[in-house]
Amino acid sequence: MPGLDLRTIGELGLIEALRRRARQARGVWVRGIGDDAAVLRPRPGRDLALTTDTLVEGIHFRWSTTDANSLGRKALAVNLSDLGAMGARPLGFLLSLALPEDASPEAIDGMLRGLLVEANTARCPLVGGDTVAGPVWTLSITAIGEVPKGAALGRSGARPGERLLVTGTLGAAALGLWLLERGQGSVQGARRFIRRQLCPRPPYEAGLRLLRTRFASAAIDLSDGLARDLAQLLRESGLAAEVHLDRLPLPRGMRALCRRFGLEAEELALHGGEDYELLFCVRAEAPSAAVFTRRLGCRVTELGVLRAGRGARSLRAGCPVPVAPWGFDHFKPVCTSADK
Amino acid sequence: MPGLDLRTIGELGLIEALRRRARQARGVWVRGIGDDAAVLRPRPGRDLALTTDTLVEGIHFRWSTTDANSLGRKALAVNLSDLGAMGARPLGFLLSLALPEDASPEAIDGMLRGLLVEANTARCPLVGGDTVAGPVWTLSITAIGEVPKGAALGRSGARPGERLLVTGTLGAAALGLWLLERGQGSVQGARRFIRRQLCPRPPYEAGLRLLRTRFASAAIDLSDGLARDLAQLLRESGLAAEVHLDRLPLPRGMRALCRRFGLEAEELALHGGEDYELLFCVRAEAPSAAVFTRRLGCRVTELGVLRAGRGARSLRAGCPVPVAPWGFDHFKPVCTSADK
Repeated sequence: MPGLDLRTIGELGLIEALRRRARQARGVWVRGIGDDAAVLRPRPGRDLALTTDTLVEGIHFRWSTTDANSLGRKALAVNLSDLGAMGARPLGFLLSLALPEDASPEAIDGMLRGLLVEANTARCPLVGGDTVAGPVWTLSITAIGEVPKGAALGRSGARPGERLLVTGTLGAAALGLWLLERGQGSVQGARRFIRRQLCPRPPYEAGLRLLRTRFASAAIDLSDGLARDLAQLLRESGLAAEVHLDRLPLPRGMRALCRRFGLEAEELALHGGEDYELLFCVRAEAPSAAVFTRRLGCRVTELGVLRAGRGARSLRAGCPVPVAPWGFDHFKPVCTSADK
Repeated sequence: MPGLDLRTIGELGLIEALRRRARQARGVWVRGIGDDAAVLRPRPGRDLALTTDTLVEGIHFRWSTTDANSLGRKALAVNLSDLGAMGARPLGFLLSLALPEDASPEAIDGMLRGLLVEANTARCPLVGGDTVAGPVWTLSITAIGEVPKGAALGRSGARPGERLLVTGTLGAAALGLWLLERGQGSVQGARRFIRRQLCPRPPYEAGLRLLRTRFASAAIDLSDGLARDLAQLLRESGLAAEVHLDRLPLPRGMRALCRRFGLEAEELALHGGEDYELLFCVRAEAPSAAVFTRRLGCRVTELGVLRAGRGARSLRAGCPVPVAPWGFDHFKPVCTSADK
């Protein structure tokens, strides 16, 4: 698609293109793109949730393995996943976009398309932002959502004896990344996993619906891998957990593909990351996972139980097994023990 | 300062350091660092203003010419300047920080110190964010402010016949940058200009106070240079302006330094950028610039008047002179005519 050559249109041209394409923000938005700041009129009885997440070329994505449309969708999706984990409904987002001067007009166009498709899907309009030059593509998004006053789900509200549940399946995105990076994207059955890596579909509504059940005490979105994100939730709540590894919800076809490449499906589910599912805690008397599946509109699996103490203990067939609770660390990609 | 080596402390360690050092957010903040999103409880009768601005190493700053403390201060200051231009009072900010893996612990420490000093000064706490690896330092901040319901100053509210005023002085930061980049930082009188470049001090309160005068119709913060930012305000308001170049408020000592190096002080004031002053429009019957100086708590100069039409016309001694209304464009640093 022509017309988005930065050296021709300049920064103002890019901002104009964003403004033209973004659906006009309405509802709570009093001012959007074109002013020094976007202005929102909060609705009475609502709190606002704000979150920011960044994708950097060469770190979070490579042009050799992603397409521009998926990149745009993912950049917004990972932020909306954070809002969802608080039980918040998205209201809008700001985009801070750093682009190399020679960024391909087709890539910019594709990214914007993907971004705005995701924005329309989630009814979360682009309301402002900043465009700058940079050595690599960097998409930094701040998303704003609303949640009934006092109801936001945090990481620190869990209590001993509560149950630990998770939406969807785990490990698919990590397997997809592995396949992509080894050039195995065209093997049979790979497509689905690669899709999960390139274009995650977080259960945006799950957090909101979970709030309405009134059984939840804490939640976190799974971006860094179950083991690490669970460790974080436990740290914030000052608790321990017992997790049944044999209950880990693996996607269909994952074990077969993993066997073929000598990978441990369980490892990917625990430590792979980028699942963008919702891990949450409910009171002991809450209904079964099957009932949550119905009420949240997506698969829900019960993983274990929370205990007094510190760290996570893993069980297989009811017996303890050691699992290092590491996950993805941008600066320190090595095992660290939080089990102590 | 030791302790902030990313390869040792990892991402979680960095987040912990941020959390420990940031003053606990209070007041409107229900949740801050440590959850998937920060949560704010808006006060009744207030709108919220949201803005985002990014500094990229090699584009917006170079380690050869800046210090870490100034960088941290500036990253927040440029955002608070945007909030100020809407008449908003800062409430808090989110930081998305990309760092090279080998980022110096001293630089990280210094930057955080500067950032949090600015945050304390402006009573604008750090409430959340994201830390990632990246090829160069990238500081992307989203600041949130509040403004009385319906009162936010925009760029599009100006009317023909209104007067155009500006706070402070223009061109100092641009001269400072020129001196720094030519290694002239130690010539007599340079220090003050370099300070303005490295560590801008926007008149945060001016916008808020301007709102209270009830004479203002539109405002914009001067980041890209008077010529370009004025052009933007005129575009948004659908107006023309007459600007008296002989009234441009130059800082003391600027003409002398400019003469010494063969620079045009007026050019720097018009096109240099990074002034972070407030350009605003007031109704014809508003009091004099001297009265605004008193009420806003900073120097205010009257630059000209708004007319029906399009673009800006510059006058010197009452006679028209041509000025290309360009300013800094991240992708297209050349002259473009918006005068047509």
